[in-house]
Amino acid sequence: MAVRVDLNISLDGFATTTDQTHDNPFGDDWPRLTGAYVATRTFRERVLHDSSGAGTTGVDDKYAEAYFAELGAEIMGAGMFGLHNFPDDPDWRGWWGDEPPFRIPVFVLTHTAPRPSIEMANGTTFHFLTATPQEALDRALEVAGGKDVRVGGGPTVVRDFLKAGLVDQLHVAIAPILLGRGVRLWDDLRGLESSYEVTSEVAESGTTHLTFRR
Amino acid sequence: MAVRVDLNISLDGFATTTDQTHDNPFGDDWPRLTGAYVATRTFRERVLHDSSGAGTTGVDDKYAEAYFAELGAEIMGAGMFGLHNFPDDPDWRGWWGDEPPFRIPVFVLTHTAPRPSIEMANGTTFHFLTATPQEALDRALEVAGGKDVRVGGGPTVVRDFLKAGLVDQLHVAIAPILLGRGVRLWDDLRGLESSYEVTSEVAESGTTHLTFRR
Repeated sequence: MAVRVDLNISLDGFATTTDQTHDNPFGDDWPRLTGAYVATRTFRERVLHDSSGAGTTGVDDKYAEAYFAELGAEIMGAGMFGLHNFPDDPDWRGWWGDEPPFRIPVFVLTHTAPRPSIEMANGTTFHFLTATPQEALDRALEVAGGKDVRVGGGPTVVRDFLKAGLVDQLHVAIAPILLGRGVRLWDDLRGLESSYEVTSEVAESGTTHLTFRR
Repeated sequence: MAVRVDLNISLDGFATTTDQTHDNPFGDDWPRLTGAYVATRTFRERVLHDSSGAGTTGVDDKYAEAYFAELGAEIMGAGMFGLHNFPDDPDWRGWWGDEPPFRIPVFVLTHTAPRPSIEMANGTTFHFLTATPQEALDRALEVAGGKDVRVGGGPTVVRDFLKAGLVDQLHVAIAPILLGRGVRLWDDLRGLESSYEVTSEVAESGTTHLTFRR
């Protein structure tokens, strides 16, 4: 059992893009930041429900496969669920569609009023809670059945878990681009590497996969 | 003929450390940031005058060798020369010692009063000038004899040359550490990669060597 994180970041350390608008809901930066991951066969199959076998099968795909393997529960911030998009709509079921890629219990951290859990058809259940990182992790471990728990994001939530010393494995896919704006992953984490073994591997796409393991 | 940059940066993008004190003139961060480079056989021979053949000879050393090869002139900021350390001493000859590793003309950018050039025994001559990046580059090209010109640093000077579009090859050695403080290389360079081909290579030390080439 391990607590894992996987994030896509730019060379200059931005893990979330901030150029989304009503007319361009993903923005221009997001596809560039996540392009190598989105191009993998695993992402196409698991997230886009494309069973044609299309997609890359190299180093990027190896990490994409590992991303979904052996997971028993997921924790994410309210922003990653999409809670901020329609904050006044109690029926809003997030932006992950009717078949979210998780297929496991997902705990969504929120400071707003409690909401009933949402059960999807494919094994994904979204639970909403206001909790510290340790409390949220305890809840996730209870239902994970001895498998791993992933902290999905965004970067602010990930930083909270890293600073609390709760993360066993941090994998970042570093895209060779400079965004110059967004939310930084690395702020306020001086010396983090001293608790981990760090390895790096370069994919065919030019993405560098860096892993902190303890 | 190409204009080249080589810098050591941390995962969180810091190229200069700021924890130096009178009693600890290099600080604790600098050795960690530059450790893989300092450990190379080339650095030991060229900068530390250690002719024993000691030092690493892998990927890090390949880049260290390239660092010194085919150079006709160097440009650096006043801080990298050490001009700020004893600003009121007209006889201060910088912190590079009697045998600086350059062995070529070095142009030191400064906003302070003009100084006479300093000629060292081994072919290194320091010239001081107040100039724009383009003007400094023109001066360096005049004496480079058709060889490359390197912009040595610090990061603020490098950014000025990058933003002016004057750099043909940028090599950064990314140490797998988080400094959390210092001077950032990547600020205000959004989209820089679009003018370059970007490649990466991981060294035995865990350092990732990333190169922008045009």
